[in-house]
Amino acid sequence: MIIECIPNVSEGRRQPIVDEIAAAIRRAPGVRLLDYSADPSHNRSVFTFAGDAAGVEQAVMALYDRALAAIDLRTHRGEHPRLGAVDVVPFVPIEGVTMDDCVSLAKQVGAAIADRFQVPVYLYEEASANPVRKNLEDIRRGEFEGLAAKMTSPDWTPDFGPSAPHATAGASVVGARMPLIAYNINLATDRLDVAKKIAAAIRQSSGGFRFVKAAGFKLDDRGIVQVSMNLTNFEKTPMFRVFETVKREAERYGVAILESEIVGLVPAAALHAAAEFYLQLAGFKPEQVLENKLRQAE
Amino acid sequence: MIIECIPNVSEGRRQPIVDEIAAAIRRAPGVRLLDYSADPSHNRSVFTFAGDAAGVEQAVMALYDRALAAIDLRTHRGEHPRLGAVDVVPFVPIEGVTMDDCVSLAKQVGAAIADRFQVPVYLYEEASANPVRKNLEDIRRGEFEGLAAKMTSPDWTPDFGPSAPHATAGASVVGARMPLIAYNINLATDRLDVAKKIAAAIRQSSGGFRFVKAAGFKLDDRGIVQVSMNLTNFEKTPMFRVFETVKREAERYGVAILESEIVGLVPAAALHAAAEFYLQLAGFKPEQVLENKLRQAE
Repeated sequence: MIIECIPNVSEGRRQPIVDEIAAAIRRAPGVRLLDYSADPSHNRSVFTFAGDAAGVEQAVMALYDRALAAIDLRTHRGEHPRLGAVDVVPFVPIEGVTMDDCVSLAKQVGAAIADRFQVPVYLYEEASANPVRKNLEDIRRGEFEGLAAKMTSPDWTPDFGPSAPHATAGASVVGARMPLIAYNINLATDRLDVAKKIAAAIRQSSGGFRFVKAAGFKLDDRGIVQVSMNLTNFEKTPMFRVFETVKREAERYGVAILESEIVGLVPAAALHAAAEFYLQLAGFKPEQVLENKLRQAE
Repeated sequence: MIIECIPNVSEGRRQPIVDEIAAAIRRAPGVRLLDYSADPSHNRSVFTFAGDAAGVEQAVMALYDRALAAIDLRTHRGEHPRLGAVDVVPFVPIEGVTMDDCVSLAKQVGAAIADRFQVPVYLYEEASANPVRKNLEDIRRGEFEGLAAKMTSPDWTPDFGPSAPHATAGASVVGARMPLIAYNINLATDRLDVAKKIAAAIRQSSGGFRFVKAAGFKLDDRGIVQVSMNLTNFEKTPMFRVFETVKREAERYGVAILESEIVGLVPAAALHAAAEFYLQLAGFKPEQVLENKLRQAE
């Protein structure tokens, strides 16, 4: 069973504290820290690790332990919006685990955080049963500074923990979501208007695919433009469908696709779905992938 | 490190012996038996297992131990050509291991088999330095019954072991090769001539791709035809190129591709290559696949 967890912590300037949190995660049994990085201007760090439910929970608790001892949001400044010292904790199903399992884990860990650290916890995305509290941006609106006032409204009673902010650590947003794919398509043109029109055509907010966020950018150094995307559910809005739609929309302007790129990690299943689509594979099963078969036999 | 091994044993009728060999493989440390099956008309069984070099070698030695005790080729009858009681032993690189590593392992295991069981061993495919002894069919020509005469020629001095056949076990062919992909493309027509012409166009033997074997068949129950293929090196002759070529050749006859199918296992890398091609992925690295990253971190 593999669950990925990608906590965002409101510390991106004091590297020793970031390193200390990373070391605490690494010590959790069966947990592999895949990546971590700190952004000084955002004053925020992101940790990516994976393991089974028990290991991941232990890593999250160790992270809270270090982060809460070191961070005081009353004096914290940075470009990135934040509600808490540990701002967001998403759990993502990777292998041998369902979304429901990750929702259960989010609730269990959320309750444990509230209990042990007296930090109010809001559930988000798949873990939230409340439609106005699904979206991270909605929960975070007003940030730490506006939290005490926001929490006086019954709409913002947390899912777990005290009904007022933690003095130095604010509140946390804990939940379950699908893996994100950061996916860009570069167009063989320098016409920014084309990239912007295509981005508008494919993103949910303006009528496009349900699980696509997109914007058009100029890549000045290369003299081309890019449709930059986040795919938030590759099962329901697959890469190949987005690619083919961008390609077709670009044709309308006489523009070809130069290349696409995946930024960071991509689940194997997202690539397999593309192979299945283009090769018109019938009756294909994940167990036919040699590596999957090997894992199952372990 | 994962090496796959797929020995073919000349016993397909006495199921208890086949099961005993399977059990012996399972007992090798770190080895997973993925599949095994016996064919009575061929009087032959195939075992598929995987592990590191030491585990796989131990499993092969255990397999010889059981097979040689039970099989006497002097009385063996079956439809499938065979040279030995343990007929063929290929090693296939899967993960964290190169073809060169598998060649080294084939030589090491070949020498150990000859030494311990006094069975002559011919190296084949990537493990063979001799161009007339690369191809399994060439080495096996004449079968067990013709082996004693064949071995009197200096061309057929074995790579390891005695220069005459083992009395009951004949000789073995040991080597290293790429994973095979059994890949079929079904055409939306019942015209067998179209399937046969396309098979001829794409297979190596009649001028097609270097690593494709192909034939055209009728699927009577479905009223369609099939181009049935073995892809013997998916890195050098990738699935997407074969698919696109079949598609283009079929167009010539006004025929569309109905679907394709992978029979049995396929390495993840073969699917990833298709995704890379069709999505025009630039700068994609295997480490970007989440599951690969997780294994590396282990």
